[in-house]
Amino acid sequence: MKLATLDDGTRDGQLIVVARDLKTAVVADGIAATLQRALDDWAFIAPQLDALSRQLNDGKARRSFEFLPARCLAPLPRAFAWIAAQAYRDPAEPDGPARKDPRLIHGGGGDLLGPCATIELASEADDIDFAAQLAVITDDVPQGAAPDEAFQQIRLLTLANDIALRRPLPAFDASPATAFAPVAVTPDELGEAWRDAKVHLALRVARNGRNVGQPDAARDMVCNFAQLVARAAAPRRLRAGTIVGAGAVANRTGKKGYCAIAHQRAVETAVDGQAVTPFLAFGDSLRIEMLDADGKAVFGAIEQTVRPTGYVPPPVVSAEKPE
Amino acid sequence: MKLATLDDGTRDGQLIVVARDLKTAVVADGIAATLQRALDDWAFIAPQLDALSRQLNDGKARRSFEFLPARCLAPLPRAFAWIAAQAYRDPAEPDGPARKDPRLIHGGGGDLLGPCATIELASEADDIDFAAQLAVITDDVPQGAAPDEAFQQIRLLTLANDIALRRPLPAFDASPATAFAPVAVTPDELGEAWRDAKVHLALRVARNGRNVGQPDAARDMVCNFAQLVARAAAPRRLRAGTIVGAGAVANRTGKKGYCAIAHQRAVETAVDGQAVTPFLAFGDSLRIEMLDADGKAVFGAIEQTVRPTGYVPPPVVSAEKPE
Repeated sequence: MKLATLDDGTRDGQLIVVARDLKTAVVADGIAATLQRALDDWAFIAPQLDALSRQLNDGKARRSFEFLPARCLAPLPRAFAWIAAQAYRDPAEPDGPARKDPRLIHGGGGDLLGPCATIELASEADDIDFAAQLAVITDDVPQGAAPDEAFQQIRLLTLANDIALRRPLPAFDASPATAFAPVAVTPDELGEAWRDAKVHLALRVARNGRNVGQPDAARDMVCNFAQLVARAAAPRRLRAGTIVGAGAVANRTGKKGYCAIAHQRAVETAVDGQAVTPFLAFGDSLRIEMLDADGKAVFGAIEQTVRPTGYVPPPVVSAEKPE
Repeated sequence: MKLATLDDGTRDGQLIVVARDLKTAVVADGIAATLQRALDDWAFIAPQLDALSRQLNDGKARRSFEFLPARCLAPLPRAFAWIAAQAYRDPAEPDGPARKDPRLIHGGGGDLLGPCATIELASEADDIDFAAQLAVITDDVPQGAAPDEAFQQIRLLTLANDIALRRPLPAFDASPATAFAPVAVTPDELGEAWRDAKVHLALRVARNGRNVGQPDAARDMVCNFAQLVARAAAPRRLRAGTIVGAGAVANRTGKKGYCAIAHQRAVETAVDGQAVTPFLAFGDSLRIEMLDADGKAVFGAIEQTVRPTGYVPPPVVSAEKPE
């Protein structure tokens, strides 16, 4: 099934079930008001959501409505844990040893952005970058869980854009709020593309309308999601609703483009001695999505524009005469 | 007023109002089920909790019961943000320049421990340390808030024990779950001891029943809580229920003892060329509390024992004959 969170003015939003084709949705209010509440009691709640999902996909759900990603918050608008990892080979060292340590870090999970949220930042001089990636949302995971056990606790997958400032800054300051795809899906929605605890599909990134990356998200993933979640649960147990991001997707050859500007610049520096791809500027837009084997979007798209803090959009001038 | 969270088997526990003398409490279920929900709508909820608090302190609350810290979870058993800072002068460099950067780091807020929770760790060889400290819980704080504005958003104060492994480890692995005092209090409960956004009281630490520290929590605080919260809100807004810890209390002279073993060892190394105070061993116990000017505990005590992971206490042998 596919789940999303509607912006209803509350801090946690309203849980909705979304049709497989992302065209319609239905409120899950009789089942669980929020995604966190569903995750808190997944064994009991998930079958009810699944039944509603089947009704919706069969065109039999009552009170379904058009699904509009722009009305969505992040699937979890605030998460008790958002752990950012780096699970891919370093693009600057494609032939170096595979990195075994996925370098985990706790991020600020208390304020996660919806798929169309503006990236509001103080200064372009901070070297604004994106990091287009996959993330999983887990159930409770015991401390010290083996990868097989951790794998069983993965409840949902989604996409994230972990905006990063690349200018040398303390880690705390280098990570503004992360944005998420409108939809989180259970692993079964990925079918054959979900195997070896990896997603065998390309992650597509467009910058200002031009494709800049479509690397395969599985090929050069050094640490799969089972290993990542187990690694995150090594020092302490994880609780339901923990989000673990795998870091910007990267392939060993740069032929498929990039999911983070820093990757592209590292390759440029290694090959040509100089990085030429610029970091993001105010006004730049991003579109991040993943298509299935049939060319259909799995999670919906992250679509963001970079703006200076406090940016107010210009008034829309109507073509019609005022009455 | 004083608030706590009773362990009722749920993930977030049950919000209770506690009497000023910590002897009795009353369930706040008609007002807010959990502390997070109270913080989510503080302007509306706090006056109702305050009215209940006044009834309780006047001995007029219905259905009050004995307050037992051992039955409490952390005031916020899971927090959307737990930010650890270092707001005190480095004890190894008491005469060095005051550290202006409080070195903030996001911790794992999704699984915070109650005041009497066992510290379960895999190995004594990891150099197990405590970090006894004050922490504030905030309301929403806008990005870029000035210290004066940040100060107005401080809703509660409490104590924390941020257990740390001092063996060289990635930051993610060096921070097991943090424990909190049973009670969080509104700033007005501190009276004259709350001024300049600092708490002018000693933090008392006992190790295995022996006092090892009672430094003043205000004297050498380089960054006060208004500055700390403003610093935390510099890169991104903070949301209600954010916890900001000030780091282990430390005074410039070591005469008042220590609130972290690493501090004591740093002083020993600086003075004698060798650290002699050992890190924590399995079986070691800690007691952390803060007394007001009248010698009464403000927040109740954190009382923890260090045990190996999976430790099972020996069965209690009854002195009475079985029937």
